[in-house]
This record gives sequence, structure tokens and C-alpha cells, in this order.
Amino acid sequence: MAKSKYEYVKHFEQHQTLLRNTYVVIRVDGHGFHRFSQEHNFEKPNDLRALHLANEAAKGVMTDIQDIVLAYGESDEYSFLLRRDSTLFKRREAKIVSTIASLFTSYYVVNWFKFMGDSTLLRYPPSFDARAVCYPTAENVRDYFSWRQADCHINNLYNTTFWALVQDPTKNPPMTTTQAQAILKDTTSASKNEILFKQFNINYNTLPEIFRKGSVLFRRKMMVPVKETEQGNVIEREKSIVHIAHVDIIADEFWLTGDGKGILE
Amino acid sequence: MAKSKYEYVKHFEQHQTLLRNTYVVIRVDGHGFHRFSQEHNFEKPNDLRALHLANEAAKGVMTDIQDIVLAYGESDEYSFLLRRDSTLFKRREAKIVSTIASLFTSYYVVNWFKFMGDSTLLRYPPSFDARAVCYPTAENVRDYFSWRQADCHINNLYNTTFWALVQDPTKNPPMTTTQAQAILKDTTSASKNEILFKQFNINYNTLPEIFRKGSVLFRRKMMVPVKETEQGNVIEREKSIVHIAHVDIIADEFWLTGDGKGILE
Amino acid sequence: MAKSKYEYVKHFEQHQTLLRNTYVVIRVDGHGFHRFSQEHNFEKPNDLRALHLANEAAKGVMTDIQDIVLAYGESDEYSFLLRRDSTLFKRREAKIVSTIASLFTSYYVVNWFKFMGDSTLLRYPPSFDARAVCYPTAENVRDYFSWRQADCHINNLYNTTFWALVQDPTKNPPMTTTQAQAILKDTTSASKNEILFKQFNINYNTLPEIFRKGSVLFRRKMMVPVKETEQGNVIEREKSIVHIAHVDIIADEFWLTGDGKGILE
Amino acid sequence: MAKSKYEYVKHFEQHQTLLRNTYVVIRVDGHGFHRFSQEHNFEKPNDLRALHLANEAAKGVMTDIQDIVLAYGESDEYSFLLRRDSTLFKRREAKIVSTIASLFTSYYVVNWFKFMGDSTLLRYPPSFDARAVCYPTAENVRDYFSWRQADCHINNLYNTTFWALVQDPTKNPPMTTTQAQAILKDTTSASKNEILFKQFNINYNTLPEIFRKGSVLFRRKMMVPVKETEQGNVIEREKSIVHIAHVDIIADEFWLTGDGKGILE
Repeated sequence: MAKSKYEYVKHFEQHQTLLRNTYVVIRVDGHGFHRFSQEHNFEKPNDLRALHLANEAAKGVMTDIQDIVLAYGESDEYSFLLRRDSTLFKRREAKIVSTIASLFTSYYVVNWFKFMGDSTLLRYPPSFDARAVCYPTAENVRDYFSWRQADCHINNLYNTTFWALVQDPTKNPPMTTTQAQAILKDTTSASKNEILFKQFNINYNTLPEIFRKGSVLFRRKMMVPVKETEQGNVIEREKSIVHIAHVDIIADEFWLTGDGKGILE
Repeated sequence: MAKSKYEYVKHFEQHQTLLRNTYVVIRVDGHGFHRFSQEHNFEKPNDLRALHLANEAAKGVMTDIQDIVLAYGESDEYSFLLRRDSTLFKRREAKIVSTIASLFTSYYVVNWFKFMGDSTLLRYPPSFDARAVCYPTAENVRDYFSWRQADCHINNLYNTTFWALVQDPTKNPPMTTTQAQAILKDTTSASKNEILFKQFNINYNTLPEIFRKGSVLFRRKMMVPVKETEQGNVIEREKSIVHIAHVDIIADEFWLTGDGKGILE
Repeated sequence: MAKSKYEYVKHFEQHQTLLRNTYVVIRVDGHGFHRFSQEHNFEKPNDLRALHLANEAAKGVMTDIQDIVLAYGESDEYSFLLRRDSTLFKRREAKIVSTIASLFTSYYVVNWFKFMGDSTLLRYPPSFDARAVCYPTAENVRDYFSWRQADCHINNLYNTTFWALVQDPTKNPPMTTTQAQAILKDTTSASKNEILFKQFNINYNTLPEIFRKGSVLFRRKMMVPVKETEQGNVIEREKSIVHIAHVDIIADEFWLTGDGKGILE
Repeated sequence: MAKSKYEYVKHFEQHQTLLRNTYVVIRVDGHGFHRFSQEHNFEKPNDLRALHLANEAAKGVMTDIQDIVLAYGESDEYSFLLRRDSTLFKRREAKIVSTIASLFTSYYVVNWFKFMGDSTLLRYPPSFDARAVCYPTAENVRDYFSWRQADCHINNLYNTTFWALVQDPTKNPPMTTTQAQAILKDTTSASKNEILFKQFNINYNTLPEIFRKGSVLFRRKMMVPVKETEQGNVIEREKSIVHIAHVDIIADEFWLTGDGKGILE
């Protein structure tokens, strides 16, 4: 049972670390969620319950890991931003990505019934992967989040039009998914907006912002009641609370005067 | 909403891959499980329910990821072995460690009540980290698993003696954990065995093997019933089923003639 | 002049190490040697002086770095094999590749006149890059060297035929390089051999082996005279001397019974 | 001779790249230069010929690799700074460090006799290693170069005092190096300055700046004569020429209004 004889195997570990003084984005992504959303009858094109569940999971991750200063989510994908001076897990890449994927999964499963309803049984355990990317400048970080929010818009416009066509109750037999794909192939944003408006009387710009803009999670310092004195006075303390908003993070406003102010300093 | 303008940020991703033609071990480890086991009143020194729950999670991981040919678990730590010719996720390190940590977590949380009982509420979501290590030879792999099983034995002998001292019902007041640590400091295996036997009438070698040897998960090809014909005949098909055993994997037997045979070829 | 205030910048270094217990091949390659060989009037298709110069440089590298057990060279490219248990420079990749590229360059420049002749001035300093690749098994290593030697043969057959066509003294005007390329495009080995034999009376298989097989460098233990006693007796000692041969390293012979025996153990 | 059968070994290469949009410093360092300087009788504490030779090598590297915007050298160590948007060799780490180490070595050996004199034979080939470090911000880069220049000063003050003690012609027998080390152990800068001034009448601050500040290499745009017309008029063109200066790069001046202006933008 000599442990020391075998201990040399420890030295095969190669700890990749994330470059210091860079912003780190960890992107969590649902594994096989096309199938998962079908097996669990997610509403199309967007299932509000599932979005709120994923937001709750992201909020849990941010609450547990204080070095995360911002998160952005769309569909089954969330991006978490670590402060550039973070020393979380000594910036070891494997430990960071595995822990965040694990925490997100844990909150997602724990909160399943609360958000999806008692009757929606989990048919099999969902899983998520994660990757970490270093960004050296604030500009790179803003461009990263712009990329994801533009992606959210593009996907949502496509999906909204696609499912409007497929679920069109006036068509008998209904349009197949293949037919819908063929119609939307190579269409511009403008023509998708036109299809929605003319055929379905949907004004895309009035759809819920959570669908069009995704979800932005940030911290806000707030006075929070912590206890009551014997005289009945409530004692408050400033705490950093995670908020969720569905706002534009491509334009300057969020970063310069909004809730993103100071995050990239 | 020009997506292309921002898309350059994709190129900051640096995909670290695991060297080809090497065995890969992914070790999953409970995050802060000292506190987690206390908050959930795990029995000391070993909580059978929690061990079976973790085994179930490991079994789930192995069932989902066919390239895993062996797993070994002790306490809240599991090591998964990928075939040396595996091309899972193109051998991308971040994707492999995050997915396995996530899957393990998902199975762990989903099965919580089934193993821990309805009355043991999850007070907060558990999480796990994971790391990947490459081993070039079969000898290195065997030494790795010997290292972990020797570690299991050493920890278990210590913990069994430690908790026997602390929980000793004949002591009033009970021994403190600090006192027990002082007694065990620098003791040999022999003297711990002696304390157990003389003071507590415990023969260490007759304790359950799951405690002393940990859990070994491997695949066995079995005939499994898949359907019944109209005439009532059961149709079977050979399937690879994950088995759990609590056996020695340090000596040659497991690898040469036992269930580990062929795994390292 | 406070050094400590700035010293934090040291911690940005990320030392990538080469996986333990793997064979490491470092391949050195001439930088821009197409132009370099033209500017220095290397003979075509092969310049014996330049080949011997490069061999001398490779021999120097092997003499200085004892952990190198084999080298193989063709044209301006050399591959050096480190023993699998080598701990050279703690297996730090950058240090290994930069030192070997530097040493090779140094020997190459120092020996330039000796091999190229006093009248061949160095018009500008030559340079070489290097890369390191880990191979987990002896089979992978043999396949690596087979790959390079097969490459040597294929290039040499092509170049020999190409330059025979271009330098053909019976053609007036001479064939252009573009015309020669067009003729050789998509030809098999057999047809190149035929062109050489029928048009130029060259039997490819009787060309010098240094052209067809490249150069193999290995160590041989030999008795070497080290000093003479007062009585005039020569004292010898066993030393490991680097030898150069132009032999086949694709077939088993070299490795099983030849000078490569024991290298991959 | 089937090449394709072996070509799979190519895929074992793992190309580590340097993070985009970061400044990259490549530091070249003499290998075993303590011995090398002794074997070639370098003057102590500083050998001007050797310093100019190394500067010439660094200048050669900068001339060949246009993406290098700054270099700093002291003793046998040079740091080269790549522009943050450089795509040199696709930012592959091994290729960058090996090529720069090789080029530096090549220029060093080629220019040996020119700087060291015909009578100083090269007793064996010198070599250099190199490493690459990424720095995300201009501040980090300035701190890096401050670190090296502070190091130059500290080493030079020590060495100047050390060799003054050891070479003191008034001591008979001369002081040993061990004795000199003992005297200087734990001394402050002030006391070293005092020893130099009181015992040797050396005012440290009037020693040549190349010793005290090292060498800074940067580019300057200049009008350079390129050809003469038939009428005898000289045609000039703007070229970027590498300059060498021995100036302070710790204070702001060099970077804000001096030759370093614009380098970190």
C-alpha cells in the first residue's frame, strides 16, 4: 500500500493558466439541447419557463462566484465575465471551466420543477459544456458581448418567423419544417419582418425584450434588511445583489451610464 | 446589428487538445465537500447513501460517454479513463472536463432524493471540478489507479480511527477532534489498526470493501432482454452494461484475468 | 530603481512543458532556404557540401545535448529525438526548441567556410526554426522517421528528374522550370524513373545514398585514445561517438539489429 | 515508400499560439555565458567589444523582423517587443522563439571577428535560448522594460564593485572572489557607491551609459540615399532605420516625447 511509489503520476498534470490581467469570458452551452428541448416539450420559438430557469441558474453561478461581474444569456447559452484582476482558482483553466459548468448544471437541475412545473418530469439529466476565452482590452470584451447579443437577435428573428410559418393554423396540411427552411433561406432581416407583419400581423419590435435582447445579469449595490432590533427597528446593510435585465448592451449607454458602468475599469 | 463586425472575437479562442494516443484520466472532485457533507449530515466516517449516490452519478457518466472504459471512485472523487484512441470532442480539454463535471453533477442532483431519502433536503446546489491528465503508457495508468486506491485505503484507515475516537460513547465528555488529531499524528498503519482493535473491537479488514477499496466501474457485455415477441418469447441482445465492484486494482489480477482485462490494450 | 515594484511582470510567463514519458522529436527547418540556396549557388538537385555542412551542425547539436539519441536529416531539415525519460530543461518547450535551433545555427555558421570553401561568402545570416512534437509510443516514433525518410525519397526523385530536364545540355533553348513542372505534374515514381533512365541514362537506384536516404545520426560506444603513458602506451576509454550513416530506417533492420537497436527502449 | 501511411504523425503537433491583441516580449538569453565569457577572455566587469557584438546581433534581428518595434539589451540578454497586432508566423510560439533565437545566434557568430578581433578565436559555438511572454497592456510592457533596466543597473553596480575589489592592483595577494562576495553580501547601493568612490576613486555615475543603462534599439524614419541620377543628383527615400541608444526607459520621457513615442499605441 505504499502510496509514495505511485505518487509520481501526479507530475503528469499540466496546469494551463489563463493569462493574467486579461478579461476572461466563460461561455456555458447546453449539450444536445435541440433534442433536450424537444423531449421536454419546450414551447417554440421561445419557452419562457426554460429561459427563466436558465436565468436562475446563471444567477446562482454569479452569486456563488463573486469575481463574475457580468453575465449574458440567450437560449441555452450563457457567457460569464471575470474581472481582469481575478485570481479565481489561480486562473487554472480546467478548474474554472469545469466548476462553472458544474455549478450552472446544479442550479439548473435543482430549480427544474420550480420553473418548469411539477408535471414536467426530467426525462434525463441535462448537461452543459464550458470554454474560457481571454480578452486583453475592454473593447474586445464589448465586441464579444455585442457579438452574442447580435446573434441572439438574428436567431430569434429567424426562429420567430420559422415557427410562425410551421405553426400557421390556417394552413392545412401545415407547412413542413423543410418548406419553412426553404422559404427563409437567404432572406434579409427586412423580409423576415415583412413576413411576420403581413402574414401573421406580428410586429417583431413589440415582442418581449427577453426574446429579442436576451438576459443581462449584473450586480447592484442595495440596502438589504439583515435583522430586526428588539425595538422593532430593521437593520439594513449594503449588499451586492444580482439583477436581471433585458437591455441593449451593444450601444454605449449600458456601459457608460447604465448598469454596466465601471464593470470594465 | 452587423454580426460580422464583432465576429473577430471568436479567434481569441485557444483550443488546448489532449495529446493523441495517450490514455486520458479525468478526475472529478467535489467542491467544498467538507462543508457540504456536514450541512447534509453525512454519516462519519462513511455515508453509504452518499457513496451509492456518487456511484450512480459515475455510472450515468459512463453510460452516456461510451469512450470511458473504467472509473474509480472514493469519497467525493471519481477518476474516469478514456480509451487511448478516443476522439471525444476532438480531444479538446475544456470541452471534455466541463462536460464530464456537468454530467456528473446532473446525475448527482437528479438522484439525490432517491439515495439520500425524501427528508434530506438539498440545502444548496453541490458542485464538482474536473481536470484531465494524459498518460502515455499502460504502466502509468495502472500506477495512477494504484495511487488513488492506496489513497482511499490510507484515508479510510485514518478516518475510521479518527471517528471511532471522537464518537467513543464511553468517553464523557467526548474526545475533541483536536485531541483525536493529536493522537493520530505520525502513527503508522499498524498502530491505527491496533487502536481500532484494542479500544473498539473493530477488525479493520472486515469492514465493508466499499469503504476500504472504493468503487470500480467497468463495462461487461451481457445478454439483455430487449423485447418480447407476440408468441411471448423474450428477445435478447448483447449490450455493454456498467458494473460496480469494490475490488483490488493494485495487484495484477484485476487487469490480467479480471474485469479489467483488455481495458489497457 | 526599485526592482521589486516591477518584478510582478515575471508572473506572466506561462511555461508550457512537454508531456512526461513521451518521446520528443524536435524538427529544425531552414528559414527561406529556397532563396538562401539560390543566393549561395547551391548545386542542384543536391549540393554535397551543403549536406555535409548541415550534417556537421546536427552532429554538433547531438554532441552537446546528450539526451538526443537519434537524428535524421534531409535537405535543410533535421529531426532530433529525445529519450522518453529526458528531463532536458525540465521539458520546457520554448527553451528546448529555441536552444536546439540556436545551437544548430551556431554550428552551421561556424563551419560554413570549412565545408563551403573560402570563396563562398555568406551573403546574409541563415536561420532555422524548430518545433517539438511528443510521441507516446515507439511505433509512433518509427512512423515519424519513416514519414521523413519517405519524404526524402519522394522529393529527391522529383528534384533529380526536374533538374535533369532543366539542365539538359542537348536542349537549346533549355527547358524552362515551368515546362519541367508541367511534364512532372501527376507522374508516378515509375515514370520519373523511366524519364531518368531513358532520357538521361541515370539509374536512380545507383545515385549516392546520402541523396536518396538522407542522413541518420546515432551514437556508438567506441574505445577512444585519451592519453599516452610515459612508456608510450596509449590509454583508451569507452566514449559515445556520434556516427553518420545513409541507411534505411523504414524497415525493421536498423531498429532491431542495426545501429538503432535499443534506442526506443 | 507509401508516405500517406505515415502521415498521420503530423497530427500530433500541438501549435500553441500567443494570445491575440497582446504585446509579446521575446527574451533571448546566452546559454552558459558565464563559462563562454571566461573561455573567450571577456573583459570584466564589462567587455565593450562583446556588448557591441550583441547589439549588432539584436540590430540584425530587428532589421529582419519588421514587427519588432523595440529591443532592450544588457549583458548577454535581449528583449524584443512585437507590436500587439503582429501576426508574425500566425503567432505560433515555437516558431517565433526558435526563429528569433536562431537569427540572433546567426548574426552573433557571423559578426564575431568583426567585433572581437581576428585574434579572438571562437573556441566553441555560442548558443542562446528564447522565451515569449504576452503582456495585455502598455503599462505591463513599460513595467517589463523597467524591470530589465533596473536589473541592468543593479547587476552592473554589483559587478563593477566586485571586479574593482578583485582586480585591485594594490592588494598583494589579490582579493579572492570569495572574499569579494563576502564583502558585498547584503550591501546597499549606497555602500557600493561609497566603496567605489573611496577605495577606487570611481564615480559610478560617470561610467559609460552603455554599462549603466544597457542598450535600447528602436526604429527611426530617415531619409536615406538610394541612388544617384545621371546628372549626379542623389535620390533619397524615407526608410525605417534601427538606432541604438543608452538611455533611461523607466521614466516617462522616452515613451512620451522620446524615441519610444507611439510604440505602445
